[in-house]
Amino acid sequence: MTVTGPKGFRAAGVAAGIKASGALDLALVVNDGPEQAAAGVFTRNVIKAAPVLWSQEVLRHQRLRAVVLNSGGANAATGPGGFQDTHATAEKVAKVLDTGAVEVAVCSTGLIGERLPMDAVLSGVDTAAEALADTPEAGVAAATAVMTTDTKPKHTYKTHAGGWGIGGMAKGAGMLAPNLATMLSVVTTDASIEPDALDAALRAATRVTFDRLDVDGGTSTNDTVLLLASGASGIAPKLDDFTELLTAVCLDLVYQLRADSEGATKDVDIVVRGAASEQDAINVGRTVAEDNLVKTALFGSDPNWGRVAMALGRAQAEIDPETVSITINGVTLFAHGTTAADRSAADLSGRAIEILIDLGVGTSTATIYSTDLSHGYVEENSAYSS
Amino acid sequence: MTVTGPKGFRAAGVAAGIKASGALDLALVVNDGPEQAAAGVFTRNVIKAAPVLWSQEVLRHQRLRAVVLNSGGANAATGPGGFQDTHATAEKVAKVLDTGAVEVAVCSTGLIGERLPMDAVLSGVDTAAEALADTPEAGVAAATAVMTTDTKPKHTYKTHAGGWGIGGMAKGAGMLAPNLATMLSVVTTDASIEPDALDAALRAATRVTFDRLDVDGGTSTNDTVLLLASGASGIAPKLDDFTELLTAVCLDLVYQLRADSEGATKDVDIVVRGAASEQDAINVGRTVAEDNLVKTALFGSDPNWGRVAMALGRAQAEIDPETVSITINGVTLFAHGTTAADRSAADLSGRAIEILIDLGVGTSTATIYSTDLSHGYVEENSAYSS
Repeated sequence: MTVTGPKGFRAAGVAAGIKASGALDLALVVNDGPEQAAAGVFTRNVIKAAPVLWSQEVLRHQRLRAVVLNSGGANAATGPGGFQDTHATAEKVAKVLDTGAVEVAVCSTGLIGERLPMDAVLSGVDTAAEALADTPEAGVAAATAVMTTDTKPKHTYKTHAGGWGIGGMAKGAGMLAPNLATMLSVVTTDASIEPDALDAALRAATRVTFDRLDVDGGTSTNDTVLLLASGASGIAPKLDDFTELLTAVCLDLVYQLRADSEGATKDVDIVVRGAASEQDAINVGRTVAEDNLVKTALFGSDPNWGRVAMALGRAQAEIDPETVSITINGVTLFAHGTTAADRSAADLSGRAIEILIDLGVGTSTATIYSTDLSHGYVEENSAYSS
Repeated sequence: MTVTGPKGFRAAGVAAGIKASGALDLALVVNDGPEQAAAGVFTRNVIKAAPVLWSQEVLRHQRLRAVVLNSGGANAATGPGGFQDTHATAEKVAKVLDTGAVEVAVCSTGLIGERLPMDAVLSGVDTAAEALADTPEAGVAAATAVMTTDTKPKHTYKTHAGGWGIGGMAKGAGMLAPNLATMLSVVTTDASIEPDALDAALRAATRVTFDRLDVDGGTSTNDTVLLLASGASGIAPKLDDFTELLTAVCLDLVYQLRADSEGATKDVDIVVRGAASEQDAINVGRTVAEDNLVKTALFGSDPNWGRVAMALGRAQAEIDPETVSITINGVTLFAHGTTAADRSAADLSGRAIEILIDLGVGTSTATIYSTDLSHGYVEENSAYSS
């Protein structure tokens, strides 16, 4: 199940003709209420795509009736004309739903620097509006329509014993990095939640999930996570309960994004413990996650802790070479400044790899979700523009 | 010509048996004076190899009689035993040259976390001492003996009309990054220069050369650049003249390191102009240089300025999307927030690529020397431990 799991939501995914391939390329997610509270988090890249600028603006009202998403073009670095295209798309959706454009968020993904074929986009909105349904199939179609180099749609649905649930969809395969993986995600809930609480929950959840996915260090111009609450369950959960389930939904999507990221052959958890601060733990985890020598060693199933030591030693963090330990898939290979076990003792032949770094100087922790660097990554990103 | 170009220096490169392959693996560079002023710069990685700790210590005296270098093992993360190995190597060199160990610097390169075969190292010092010569061949042998995944020795010699010169050798193929590329370099001169001036010149030269080479973001545990002055020309040049020629020597070595770095198929200059500060320019240049999506696009000869825009937009720097322009191989592709020309107008089919980024907010500049990211890089770094 997906964004149509919670009550009060309809979705659609259609082929609007934006992609030359004829694949699904336009999605619509509609909140039928009774409530329309919404929150969003966006890329921190200073070069923001037109739909990001638009959606940030409309979210000031903390209310959304619908989200329209397209693949086949990022509408980034497209100047005032590109912004007008986003505005026209929101106006079109507002018209077919009989609401105001200010209640419509827009997300785009694809190549940077190209204008969208607006005829296709606008007629696609009509097609999508007709296809709207509250079925699982409609939710999957929406998740499919936002795919770029993704090989499969990503969606989830989790319910709470209290009688409400959270659904989500996401796309993203490359340019996945700190401060929101490069991706679009729409999360829906039928819980009844005030906008400010919704915003707080979304920030808390993304901080430890999407913000800690780091495949290639890139931060796209289009990253967007939107959370829409319909209140259709009639239940107002405790904020802690809601944040907990929301975090689980986001983490589920993060795992799916990682598993399907460009060329990845390993799912790598970099767990940092004993840091002087959480920021130190994040800095160490990201530096190791983004190090190409570490990543290529993991692709080769080589527990090359020397490269991990090199990478963490250049991170912005309080580090004492004598207190650091490095444990890979359960085997401590480096401790007290020197070799602790023969590297061959660590088995990296499987897909799941855990690199546990204990800095031994404090009590803070963080986990970064990463991948290896494979021939597939180079092939996908050198042979095709994206 | 190489480190034996300037008067007063002898060198040797021998096969000591440290490498199982039987290739040259131990080098000795000796300053016969009459002066022995020396300066050094070292890795900023907090995990420093034993020879770095040793050489930093002995350089407090600003005087070196010799440098001994080995490939086949980095002697990093080897604990107190590894430090004793470095000390013993310096003592051995001191004995054969009839000087003190405090006048002998040590450099090592190779796999992290393995102890050196000390019998081979110590007997290799004897062999090298016997082979010492002031010939070009001896200099090339020394440059060859420090190679790891390098495919060719790197050396240079430049002379000043004033009657003195500067020679240099370097090694480095991966883990090449900010704050000294991962490499060892020995630079020699027969100019007569006071140690403090020598130190100032070396820091000024490396700051804009070795410090701006960024192949893969790695910063090794062993990076070392040593500068030895014999005074054998009898000439004391102006410091500005010396720094200028020294910078040219270092840049020549940087170009050689870049051209021979692991898997590189492109020589990429990232020139940043119009920055609010030099640090901003460096941050932007490095962020773009280390971005895997940019690097793989360059491998594919694709002038994908959208990825450059994405990368610079996440750099720590003052950036205004409206004033940034991106020019690739002479063609301005992005300006005033949108496309400036069709990307096909930029020809990236050759090996040399210049990405010129004008931030348009200030007057500071910096150039980062980088490469692409190829299948060769992934192959070399996943198939073999290094």
